[in-house]
Amino acid sequence: MTIQQYYQAQENAFLAGLIEWLKIPSISTLPERKPEVRQAAEFIARELREIGLRQVELIEGQAGQNPLIYGEWLDAPGKPTLLLYGHYDVQPPDPWDEWSSPPFEPTARGNDLFARGASDDKGQTYILVKAVEGFLRAEGRLPINVKFLIEGEEEVGGQHIESYVAGRPARLQCDAALVCDTEMFAPGLPTLTTGLRGLVYTEIEARGAAQDLHSGLYGGAAPNPIQALAQILAGLKRRDGRIAIPGFYRRVERPSRAELAAWRNLPFSEKAFLKTEVGARALVGEKGYTVLERIWARPTLEVHGIRGGFTGEGAKTVIPAAASAKVSMRLVPAMRPSEAIQQYRAAVKRLTPPGIRTTVRVLASSPACLVSTDSRFIQAAAQALEQIFGRKTVYIRAGGSIPVVGLFDRYLRVPTVLMGFGLPDDRLHSPNEKFHLPNFYRGIESVGRYLQLLGEA
Amino acid sequence: MTIQQYYQAQENAFLAGLIEWLKIPSISTLPERKPEVRQAAEFIARELREIGLRQVELIEGQAGQNPLIYGEWLDAPGKPTLLLYGHYDVQPPDPWDEWSSPPFEPTARGNDLFARGASDDKGQTYILVKAVEGFLRAEGRLPINVKFLIEGEEEVGGQHIESYVAGRPARLQCDAALVCDTEMFAPGLPTLTTGLRGLVYTEIEARGAAQDLHSGLYGGAAPNPIQALAQILAGLKRRDGRIAIPGFYRRVERPSRAELAAWRNLPFSEKAFLKTEVGARALVGEKGYTVLERIWARPTLEVHGIRGGFTGEGAKTVIPAAASAKVSMRLVPAMRPSEAIQQYRAAVKRLTPPGIRTTVRVLASSPACLVSTDSRFIQAAAQALEQIFGRKTVYIRAGGSIPVVGLFDRYLRVPTVLMGFGLPDDRLHSPNEKFHLPNFYRGIESVGRYLQLLGEA
Repeated sequence: MTIQQYYQAQENAFLAGLIEWLKIPSISTLPERKPEVRQAAEFIARELREIGLRQVELIEGQAGQNPLIYGEWLDAPGKPTLLLYGHYDVQPPDPWDEWSSPPFEPTARGNDLFARGASDDKGQTYILVKAVEGFLRAEGRLPINVKFLIEGEEEVGGQHIESYVAGRPARLQCDAALVCDTEMFAPGLPTLTTGLRGLVYTEIEARGAAQDLHSGLYGGAAPNPIQALAQILAGLKRRDGRIAIPGFYRRVERPSRAELAAWRNLPFSEKAFLKTEVGARALVGEKGYTVLERIWARPTLEVHGIRGGFTGEGAKTVIPAAASAKVSMRLVPAMRPSEAIQQYRAAVKRLTPPGIRTTVRVLASSPACLVSTDSRFIQAAAQALEQIFGRKTVYIRAGGSIPVVGLFDRYLRVPTVLMGFGLPDDRLHSPNEKFHLPNFYRGIESVGRYLQLLGEA
Repeated sequence: MTIQQYYQAQENAFLAGLIEWLKIPSISTLPERKPEVRQAAEFIARELREIGLRQVELIEGQAGQNPLIYGEWLDAPGKPTLLLYGHYDVQPPDPWDEWSSPPFEPTARGNDLFARGASDDKGQTYILVKAVEGFLRAEGRLPINVKFLIEGEEEVGGQHIESYVAGRPARLQCDAALVCDTEMFAPGLPTLTTGLRGLVYTEIEARGAAQDLHSGLYGGAAPNPIQALAQILAGLKRRDGRIAIPGFYRRVERPSRAELAAWRNLPFSEKAFLKTEVGARALVGEKGYTVLERIWARPTLEVHGIRGGFTGEGAKTVIPAAASAKVSMRLVPAMRPSEAIQQYRAAVKRLTPPGIRTTVRVLASSPACLVSTDSRFIQAAAQALEQIFGRKTVYIRAGGSIPVVGLFDRYLRVPTVLMGFGLPDDRLHSPNEKFHLPNFYRGIESVGRYLQLLGEA
């Protein structure tokens, strides 16, 4: 029985295991879910132990931090060592009532499994675990050395993994990292992601009067912090989509001609993207750039949430004392988070109208990254995917941020291979998140093949 | 015994009666307080009957509406008929723990009586009742004809009084209305309010994508409804405070030179207003207008509340599908609510960026009003106040809106005299609401004197 045959024979068992894991609401943004977050960590640590990984342990951080999970198998001397990364925490499922089936009762419909975390990232992390399990169960050994590092604060930008990796512990020494937390560009199209945007996530609070005021008695003379926030947000980004922060674009470089040309050959229709993925009246953004360039290779500024004053039913004529907004910037390679933060703070200050005090808190910050396609780890990954999916692998970038890639680059000095099996319509962070089950199974086979190829070299 | 002597002799009895009324928590915003709301209505209807008013009745509205109270005394043929208005419902007292004495256990400290509704508006409504009682008890008759109309939905913007007044019932025919629900400009300074701003209260909803999106995957190409709202709000009002809705100021007239000159003579310090009432870093608003002109005679546009996206703790990188804001405009005399609404809707539409759909709902709408100081009803009121307080009466406007004044103007075609005895620090709608007892007693005497003067003319 080849390893691929083994994988195929185990599909039902793999799915059953994933469903068990997905039932645990390990929502890292909600403090009241701490017990479930830990439960999800223990679940996967137990699996690692059971399949034969060694030194499996929950690495505890400071008070309040969620554990990292470590496990290793190092009995392939002379062979490369690959660090396998995933995360066991998930986004909150709100709004609950928009889910067709409950977010923590995984439900298969057609070829898709619906649940919060199905694709991001329990399903993809489970691919790594099951690929490794296959070798250990079917052959008793792995073709290369592997180390798992699975975290539980990815969705909250937690600091635990950063402080751990920054300490450069000997056990993390490796030749490359494999992260399974990205997408395929299209169904059936094997994809490697070679660039990610960075992220600076902030909260702006605006304060005006010492207490809420009656707009009849004070309107026209008292400062209004919601209006101030609106002015600031409108001032940070022009109507044409260009960010209006002085100096912000200084380090931005366009992708190479070859990379842009490759993107033009991807099966991508702006019309279909608008209609099937976004569902709005129109796409927006900077003129002179394709949509793919806008979402992969241009910096952005987005408001994620805003609140202030009276938002109940009916009419209350209050001028609130305070209002706040969550605002992030996506950064592209060469941009420096600390510099962007400085420029942003200065711009918010300059845009703050008289009578209002603003404070800016930075909640998360990570640089963009770019991996060379010349790396042998990338080349082998492309080959493995091609063999399993039967099509030529494409190289894309992703607009999101996976801070751990920057950490591996900076502290471990290794390249990261971003081999992902999500699909563009997986609705990450949205109601009705799902994972395409054929991708789950082909993903396991692809990672298995990848380990084989690395072992043969 | 003159009527004034009678009033002075009865002060303790008047206070005792008011305290009984204030003990009833007639909070119209809380459905569970319906019994107490009715109890407060029955309390005052009983008093009207006992002092000799006729045709006293509770006028029931549709299911769920609170009763109006009517009562009349019409035995002064050839004399004017005055409609006396007040309201028996009160605001909720929250937060309870900020009250120095319980909100429904009226407590006198120094010259002030502390209770929810003490000033707004039971104390002031009781002034009207006790002024009339004085004549009927001391002289057996009134100098003019009076009709009471007391409502129980003022604090919730209820529709009962509007539908009743709009029917123009014969029993509401009168020559003028007297509303006792406003403030004196400063302690001891007799005040008539001659203008109120109107109000158009709206909710704007902005919708972008069909569902929440991940800002990493879509940021830079997907429309963001919070950003759109920010652009719309920033576009509706310039940074210098001027409303940027085309045509909005067309009908706005400045107060007369005489009125502006009179305002300049009021005991008002912008510095003290900023420090003691607003508590912000600076006052704001249109250049070239005093603060009093800004809050009394200029239209405004204010955001009262805004919500959208993720506003919990931490960082969630969502581009929300929708966001909404509550926005009102205060209108000044001559502006037409329907025209302002039309201009506003057009401006919101024009400011809506590509990819976003906005809808505007109008939740409330009432015109401004202005009473000529030449009216004999105003002249007599000014004279009455001067005789009781021993100082010249000042004419002010108020920035708020009292919709009933517009109803009396529109349906009964009578002017309304706004004779109020509240003080700027009475903390209406806030904890520790109080009524200055000397104003309670002088208020009764003032209304009594007013009825006499109207009877003499």
